[in-house]
Amino acid sequence: MIKDISNLQAKLEELLITQQNLKTQGHVADYIPALAEVSPTLMGISVATVDGKVFGAGDDKIPFSIQSISKIFGLVMAMNRIGDDLWQRVNMEPSGQPFNSIIQLEWEKGIPRNPVINAGALLIADVLASHFSASKLAFLSFMRSLSGDNNIYIDNHVYQSELSHGSRNAALAYLMKSFGNIEAEIPDVLSHYFTQCSISMNCQQLATSLLFLANKGIDPRTKNSICTPRDTHRVNAILSTSGMYDQSGEFAFSVGLPAKSGVGGGVVAVVPNYGVICAWSPPLNKYGNSIIGTNLVLGIAEELGLSIYH
Amino acid sequence: MIKDISNLQAKLEELLITQQNLKTQGHVADYIPALAEVSPTLMGISVATVDGKVFGAGDDKIPFSIQSISKIFGLVMAMNRIGDDLWQRVNMEPSGQPFNSIIQLEWEKGIPRNPVINAGALLIADVLASHFSASKLAFLSFMRSLSGDNNIYIDNHVYQSELSHGSRNAALAYLMKSFGNIEAEIPDVLSHYFTQCSISMNCQQLATSLLFLANKGIDPRTKNSICTPRDTHRVNAILSTSGMYDQSGEFAFSVGLPAKSGVGGGVVAVVPNYGVICAWSPPLNKYGNSIIGTNLVLGIAEELGLSIYH
Amino acid sequence: MIKDISNLQAKLEELLITQQNLKTQGHVADYIPALAEVSPTLMGISVATVDGKVFGAGDDKIPFSIQSISKIFGLVMAMNRIGDDLWQRVNMEPSGQPFNSIIQLEWEKGIPRNPVINAGALLIADVLASHFSASKLAFLSFMRSLSGDNNIYIDNHVYQSELSHGSRNAALAYLMKSFGNIEAEIPDVLSHYFTQCSISMNCQQLATSLLFLANKGIDPRTKNSICTPRDTHRVNAILSTSGMYDQSGEFAFSVGLPAKSGVGGGVVAVVPNYGVICAWSPPLNKYGNSIIGTNLVLGIAEELGLSIYH
Amino acid sequence: MIKDISNLQAKLEELLITQQNLKTQGHVADYIPALAEVSPTLMGISVATVDGKVFGAGDDKIPFSIQSISKIFGLVMAMNRIGDDLWQRVNMEPSGQPFNSIIQLEWEKGIPRNPVINAGALLIADVLASHFSASKLAFLSFMRSLSGDNNIYIDNHVYQSELSHGSRNAALAYLMKSFGNIEAEIPDVLSHYFTQCSISMNCQQLATSLLFLANKGIDPRTKNSICTPRDTHRVNAILSTSGMYDQSGEFAFSVGLPAKSGVGGGVVAVVPNYGVICAWSPPLNKYGNSIIGTNLVLGIAEELGLSIYH
Repeated sequence: MIKDISNLQAKLEELLITQQNLKTQGHVADYIPALAEVSPTLMGISVATVDGKVFGAGDDKIPFSIQSISKIFGLVMAMNRIGDDLWQRVNMEPSGQPFNSIIQLEWEKGIPRNPVINAGALLIADVLASHFSASKLAFLSFMRSLSGDNNIYIDNHVYQSELSHGSRNAALAYLMKSFGNIEAEIPDVLSHYFTQCSISMNCQQLATSLLFLANKGIDPRTKNSICTPRDTHRVNAILSTSGMYDQSGEFAFSVGLPAKSGVGGGVVAVVPNYGVICAWSPPLNKYGNSIIGTNLVLGIAEELGLSIYH
Repeated sequence: MIKDISNLQAKLEELLITQQNLKTQGHVADYIPALAEVSPTLMGISVATVDGKVFGAGDDKIPFSIQSISKIFGLVMAMNRIGDDLWQRVNMEPSGQPFNSIIQLEWEKGIPRNPVINAGALLIADVLASHFSASKLAFLSFMRSLSGDNNIYIDNHVYQSELSHGSRNAALAYLMKSFGNIEAEIPDVLSHYFTQCSISMNCQQLATSLLFLANKGIDPRTKNSICTPRDTHRVNAILSTSGMYDQSGEFAFSVGLPAKSGVGGGVVAVVPNYGVICAWSPPLNKYGNSIIGTNLVLGIAEELGLSIYH
Repeated sequence: MIKDISNLQAKLEELLITQQNLKTQGHVADYIPALAEVSPTLMGISVATVDGKVFGAGDDKIPFSIQSISKIFGLVMAMNRIGDDLWQRVNMEPSGQPFNSIIQLEWEKGIPRNPVINAGALLIADVLASHFSASKLAFLSFMRSLSGDNNIYIDNHVYQSELSHGSRNAALAYLMKSFGNIEAEIPDVLSHYFTQCSISMNCQQLATSLLFLANKGIDPRTKNSICTPRDTHRVNAILSTSGMYDQSGEFAFSVGLPAKSGVGGGVVAVVPNYGVICAWSPPLNKYGNSIIGTNLVLGIAEELGLSIYH
Repeated sequence: MIKDISNLQAKLEELLITQQNLKTQGHVADYIPALAEVSPTLMGISVATVDGKVFGAGDDKIPFSIQSISKIFGLVMAMNRIGDDLWQRVNMEPSGQPFNSIIQLEWEKGIPRNPVINAGALLIADVLASHFSASKLAFLSFMRSLSGDNNIYIDNHVYQSELSHGSRNAALAYLMKSFGNIEAEIPDVLSHYFTQCSISMNCQQLATSLLFLANKGIDPRTKNSICTPRDTHRVNAILSTSGMYDQSGEFAFSVGLPAKSGVGGGVVAVVPNYGVICAWSPPLNKYGNSIIGTNLVLGIAEELGLSIYH
């Protein structure tokens, strides 16, 4: 890796201008009305490094709905809470299916393929709802603590919108329950899940919050251990094989970093021993990944030679 | 990464003894008679490093049928021959299905999910059979050149056995042809494919042959460029997300290296900028991966801290 | 057809004795506790004819949970209520899948394959719950009217058991809702569905209730038109291709009558222009059909030459 | 049933004129060039009755490629030859899948769902190729004998076209072979199958040839027993649940007769104890069934009240 950070700020701005000049493709997520309202032309990028620097360009301080990026944090909380018992209830294989597919869940008898597709994240939500007396609050506190910002909030407008368009996730949860793989009441599981998806954060906060994954589990700001080195390795492995839905293979092929996207348009990528990149732009491709967000991460990864596969 | 190689030889021997003391589980591949004849108690491991050292223990000099490990070399040859046109005919996504599944191929209209499942490797075989005047000879020459050993040979007994039990691969090939994704005659495609699968090599030869993947495409012995740095990155990415069949996610989760297995019992793993591990033991688990081979690679990767996800 | 009814009573008793002497195979439905409590050795058979005769043998007057046999009556009510609009929301094809499969429902975007698999029956329950002010009461009244017995009742013990083990049906309903194919609230749909499944009736009552299907839509007892001749034809067609779950083809092949089974152990078969057979015995085969119930219907159909395919 | 045949000739002509006035929809089968050459405006209908009458209108004496209608005759030959052993190798369930789907065949481990989808017909072709010394000749003789016309021939142009576009059928055959469910050599199986598909017959010949299915197995012309009453019942049952591919349920729902279509545009329907209808018009709907052919059969069935579900 080159990982030269001189001129990083200039590079970020340059990449952003290139993307701004491209005609916006794709569509802002419209399966819930609250997300469809976001302006498609917003875009931002931030890089936080393990040695404490934060760079950013564009709309990197405008909060957006983190959506599925929340799955990383939920996974870490569940691993910390119930340890390896978790892996009796969810696998760690790529799915080879669209992100919210119910077919595979039936095929594999209620065991989700991995924790970062919807079924797996609902399973994680069940673990949290079952093992924390106030799982939503615990989740929000975790996010505030990791980002060092107590103003991080749940967007209630998004939450209500999720709740009233949540039939597919309800179907996934009930199907897992029919196989005996859900412990809590379904409404509680869904409520937790939609809550964590509805958190608003900006690029800078997300990049900062995930630095522990680039630092063997230690938050470099606070020196707190967020998870074990082994679990850090495992989370990065899961993000590498499955974090970008059914485009994960292509992302590995072209970018080569552990990453996770959300339908709010955010993309985060972990660079072990270096830092975290977070890019944001609402329009999505057919896989549910931010088009420009992916381009921005690709640009910075190529520029700095960040791929883990070299 | 620690990558300390002092005592590596002793470590390999120690790991081997531990595995020898375990009761052999799994079954030697029996879908073709020639493979079923191999002794289940043989096992070996070799590590070749980019700076020219080769370590080994156990039966690391006994040749075995490389089988699907040949898919790596075929992929490199095809990439070099037709460039990015290749990616119009095969994807680079994990499959989420057993290695020889025909279901996905129908679903996705004859485009294989990736080049290291059977359908994808047959597609590659078609590319080679169509673009080389003597593709089998070219393949063998490539292997001899990479390993620096002109005695590497095709095991005709295995080849004949493959040929007479090749109905499933024939079905995959004809299905792709029905979607217009095969150019050569099916018997020629199958003949090339079974030939490359029937090559015999030992652990040391395989580890040495793949050093270019740990060295940005350059063979460290000869300084020849085997493939571009970009393609090296791509091959390692594909091996990371898909190389261990439907256990690829678990392998990333526990080991964390680009790898490929074959039903002959071989497992190879690439450690970028360090070297290549090759382990061998015939008994396979339900995914078609060598049980002890996987354990040996895991042991050495943990011992030396080799994971790319740290 | 022979359809000779002299000695029919004797034939029924003879068939029953033959079955009683067979060792009971199969398992009583145990997915809900209330059904698992029923004695596996009970068995009965009844034949009602369009000219007003009723024959019976064994436990033909002991009420049992009609379960999926209720789907026939729900279908007739829905056809009468919304006419051909119904066929925009549900197909009439055999499923080629286990009876409660969710895979096909996703594949076909929330349109159930036919009205007598679970997904289709939930769709029908939605139609009834949406179009009747008191759909459960209307259903019960319909059953009482058709059977001419005002004592027919809903078994509340079964109903409660269904309700607390209804996750899979909830998953099917939510999945259809996610595709926009459910109008009512899911709890209302499930409540209607479990209510109609929980009705208790005996063989004689069921055979009598379905005579209109053997009589071009006219109830021969009351001369009331229950449905049009065209819809009678359609119901019989659907029962012929799909009424016995994923054993419908085999049932047509061996018996050759429009039929429907329920996991309570009941089997009804319509003989156009002749009458209706209802057999009951709780142990089920792997398809969810009563083993002895099927045998009894087969026996009487062969004896009398009733198949519609001759 | 009404089955009044006075004016039948006039009815057939009237129905044909109605269809001729409709704008032709659908597309002539184009997966093989030889079929694509047939004029889309040809159409004919014939009705043969068990009491020896033959009616016809339009192009009912122009021969066309019988294609999958040949599956009925192959099934009868195989039933006669190996008896109930046949049902160990092929099921009798509707498929719930497109007619040449390979997915279900993999799912069900090489056992075709029924004998009238492609996989099942290839299985039948294997039975015939394995058990007759000259299966193609035997097949042709059977057709000539049933139709009473020794001029019936194999269209070699169609046969060659099938052969050179047979990859998908080859894939199905090899997949069955990989599960051990094919005995003969694949090229022989395919050659037999394409031969029987390539037979040319006209409406009148086809209707006449199938009269035994309307007459409990006895050919009413010759009084020969073509198959047992039980097997006649079974064939009609299979045609009723599966004969019209993935539109079989809808055909039962609207027409209500055992039937089989071919991609050459032919549709045959059996009316037990009455006769056989054969209609022909090349343009197909998305299921592979003749649009006008289906309309013509529907028209005559409704006119005469022929449905078996009344």
